[in-house]
Amino acid sequence: MAKDKKLVEQITSMEEDFAQWYTDVVLKAELIDYTSVKGCMVIKPAGFAIWERIKNELDARFKATGVENVYLPMFIPESLLQKEKDHVEGFAPEAAWVTLGGSNPLQEKLCVRPTSETLFCDFYKKDVESYRDLPKVYNQWCSVVRWEKETRPFLRSREFLWQEGHTAHATAEEAEERTVQMLNVYADFLEDYLAIPVIKGKKTDKEKFAGAEATYTVEALMHDGKALQSGTSHNFGDGFARAFEIQYTDKDNKLQFVHQTSWGMTTRVIGALIMVHGDDSGLVLTPKVAPVQVMIVPIMQKKEGVLDKAEELRKSLADKYRVKVDASDKNPGFKFAEQEMRGIPLRVEVGPKDIEAGQAVVVRRDTREKVTVPFEELDAKIGEMLDAMQKDMFERAKAHRDSHTYTATSWEEFTDTLEHKPGFIKAMWCGDEACETAIKDETGATTRCMPFEQETLSDVCVHCGKPAKKMVYFGRAY
Amino acid sequence: MAKDKKLVEQITSMEEDFAQWYTDVVLKAELIDYTSVKGCMVIKPAGFAIWERIKNELDARFKATGVENVYLPMFIPESLLQKEKDHVEGFAPEAAWVTLGGSNPLQEKLCVRPTSETLFCDFYKKDVESYRDLPKVYNQWCSVVRWEKETRPFLRSREFLWQEGHTAHATAEEAEERTVQMLNVYADFLEDYLAIPVIKGKKTDKEKFAGAEATYTVEALMHDGKALQSGTSHNFGDGFARAFEIQYTDKDNKLQFVHQTSWGMTTRVIGALIMVHGDDSGLVLTPKVAPVQVMIVPIMQKKEGVLDKAEELRKSLADKYRVKVDASDKNPGFKFAEQEMRGIPLRVEVGPKDIEAGQAVVVRRDTREKVTVPFEELDAKIGEMLDAMQKDMFERAKAHRDSHTYTATSWEEFTDTLEHKPGFIKAMWCGDEACETAIKDETGATTRCMPFEQETLSDVCVHCGKPAKKMVYFGRAY
Repeated sequence: MAKDKKLVEQITSMEEDFAQWYTDVVLKAELIDYTSVKGCMVIKPAGFAIWERIKNELDARFKATGVENVYLPMFIPESLLQKEKDHVEGFAPEAAWVTLGGSNPLQEKLCVRPTSETLFCDFYKKDVESYRDLPKVYNQWCSVVRWEKETRPFLRSREFLWQEGHTAHATAEEAEERTVQMLNVYADFLEDYLAIPVIKGKKTDKEKFAGAEATYTVEALMHDGKALQSGTSHNFGDGFARAFEIQYTDKDNKLQFVHQTSWGMTTRVIGALIMVHGDDSGLVLTPKVAPVQVMIVPIMQKKEGVLDKAEELRKSLADKYRVKVDASDKNPGFKFAEQEMRGIPLRVEVGPKDIEAGQAVVVRRDTREKVTVPFEELDAKIGEMLDAMQKDMFERAKAHRDSHTYTATSWEEFTDTLEHKPGFIKAMWCGDEACETAIKDETGATTRCMPFEQETLSDVCVHCGKPAKKMVYFGRAY
Repeated sequence: MAKDKKLVEQITSMEEDFAQWYTDVVLKAELIDYTSVKGCMVIKPAGFAIWERIKNELDARFKATGVENVYLPMFIPESLLQKEKDHVEGFAPEAAWVTLGGSNPLQEKLCVRPTSETLFCDFYKKDVESYRDLPKVYNQWCSVVRWEKETRPFLRSREFLWQEGHTAHATAEEAEERTVQMLNVYADFLEDYLAIPVIKGKKTDKEKFAGAEATYTVEALMHDGKALQSGTSHNFGDGFARAFEIQYTDKDNKLQFVHQTSWGMTTRVIGALIMVHGDDSGLVLTPKVAPVQVMIVPIMQKKEGVLDKAEELRKSLADKYRVKVDASDKNPGFKFAEQEMRGIPLRVEVGPKDIEAGQAVVVRRDTREKVTVPFEELDAKIGEMLDAMQKDMFERAKAHRDSHTYTATSWEEFTDTLEHKPGFIKAMWCGDEACETAIKDETGATTRCMPFEQETLSDVCVHCGKPAKKMVYFGRAY
């Protein structure tokens, strides 16, 4: 069991140092590795398999709403990036610029896309002529680059993978409808598939996307009480359309500007998955997202018949579940630790005694619940356990989120909660950006969102005492 | 029918101007569009849907051979690119360089990946320690950048999409085996899925990949008699491993260099698909790759019951086939032309008279064969017709390739064939690179490959008359 110990010992406990625990899990579960390219990571097979499942699931949900995939260039000419004033101010400071092609200086430098609104606008300007061409509901899966100073695996890196949806509509109403629709796709995906409960709401003007009229967000609470913005959806109104002159002829033959939206989800959600569900033994994946749902570990596998039985069980389960046998020459304790580190939802242990008794031991990754199951009931029992685990993981995360959501009706209460009780703070706000900035400067807490479900906690702003306009979720955030 | 005419008239005929025909099809079938970014294209929904199907099919075939997907950074530090001498010489001249991050000059400039051998080497150097870590059989789907001067949609663009597989093995034999295995995956995929017959062979030293010991290729013949390299697989031996010091400890505890391979297929194959199967009405997609296999076109759709029947047919076919109804307000002739332009394999026409007679008319895109099919037989008949079309397309392409493959045993015959009969020329070659270069300089024809299936056409080199070493396929190429 020496190897087993080694694997587990190298992980810092969550309570001791959450940031170090996170890094340990990410590396030990072999999700990523660092590279010679500062601020960029390798996504290794175990990490990429998770992203593939997220991508396939989201893509299917997008397509069910009429989304079509496209691919646009990764480069944005400087003049194009500059067309929308707020947008360029937001993104230019962290842009990476290509200035040489071959050995020749370029006439115009090219930004490696940090996001593609300007490219989609340039495309729609050509592609949209009549109301018959609308709506355009396009999406692309790609990588984007933002020259961040401090980086962390999945949470903040200079290059990351994402999807970016970009739509153009005939009316403001349709654009708003699509913006909210996609936010709901994100919320449902996060809750149903990743078992991450979210707060849906609107960003304040200070926190909205550069160039947007309104930004909607889904905010999740991590195990350490910090918030993570997990998906955003933006309504641009006709701002970009005016800057790029994207017009269409309506049914009355009059020229109109289109109304646009964009919405994105990134490899960051893998960070959320880790920080919402993980524990001191490593990753815990939901049954729905797990690339491998069941790991069969043979015990005393050199005894005759054990590996055969393990393989027979695998085959009998493979139609319904994603299942593997760990037949490597490591000892079982090491295999257990590895399966736990990787967050594989169920472990099936089968050895000579089990075979004699016609049964196997099944262990749940999240609760460690251990049950002995006759071989003939294994198929059904595994289905039940996976369903239960998916449901329990959501309920547990929701209970954690709810018990770490506080209300503050005075400034003293606000700062006291922030200092002693990591989590969301619900509080009233006057709606003044200067007041929001002051709160951030004084405490480090930011407005996460103005939730769709508003409550009236008091009549006055928690900070300045002026009349309150909105209830806001505050928090420290990743 | 005015609109119908307009759509068709704008296409140049293949015989008149093949290059213009290609561009017309690519634009009219709405596969791509040009952008403000010189040399880069937008892949539009119809084009991207084809790439998605290619990607999913290839990815499944890769995974069946044990390939795992990963994602590496898009940037390569200059010092990393320079580690393998031949490799940097091959790629530096067409590299795009990032020199600014935000507003700050970078300490070391970063190349936007033209291919990722150097990054994978850097990664394997860290990731491989013992023979237990081998083999590594990784692949990534991404875009790459090569600063080409002249570009053409799908065939040559500054940025293109591809997959690049990169493997590391304990022995030279295993690396060679994987190189050939992946070439066969490409060949089977092209022939079985895209109905494109290929010649499998080895590139000459002059034409091999920069840094490779050996490059294998699958070469296809386009309708105009020009060749297109459609997929390549490279054996690096231990050259990169020595340059990057990628070593492992073998079972006897001795340090050994790994042996590596890489292999890639790109959006170029969409160009091949167009140029092998297309005709003067536009694209012709194989039933296997077609995002939509059956387009139901209602005739006199305003008559009661017609749209309902079309929709009923769609539903009855949707379990087995990818099927759509074109219920737009265009006239049927326009819809026919559009379905043909987009290469949708089958059209089902259904109008009031058909409904009365309990039948529909089914038209094959490739042969225009028209059959009247009772509704209750439609499901089975469509299956048959799709299978037949897939098979016929391959046979037709193969017959075209074979009838455009010539042999030349004298230099006069070689130049005469090249001038008057576009196609492959099989000829003997002395094996001397200077002679190969002379042939290219004098005629524009390049060595496509030394086919695995060798024949002896004569004893002497077709150009210099020295003793022949290999039979080679020559051709003009895209």
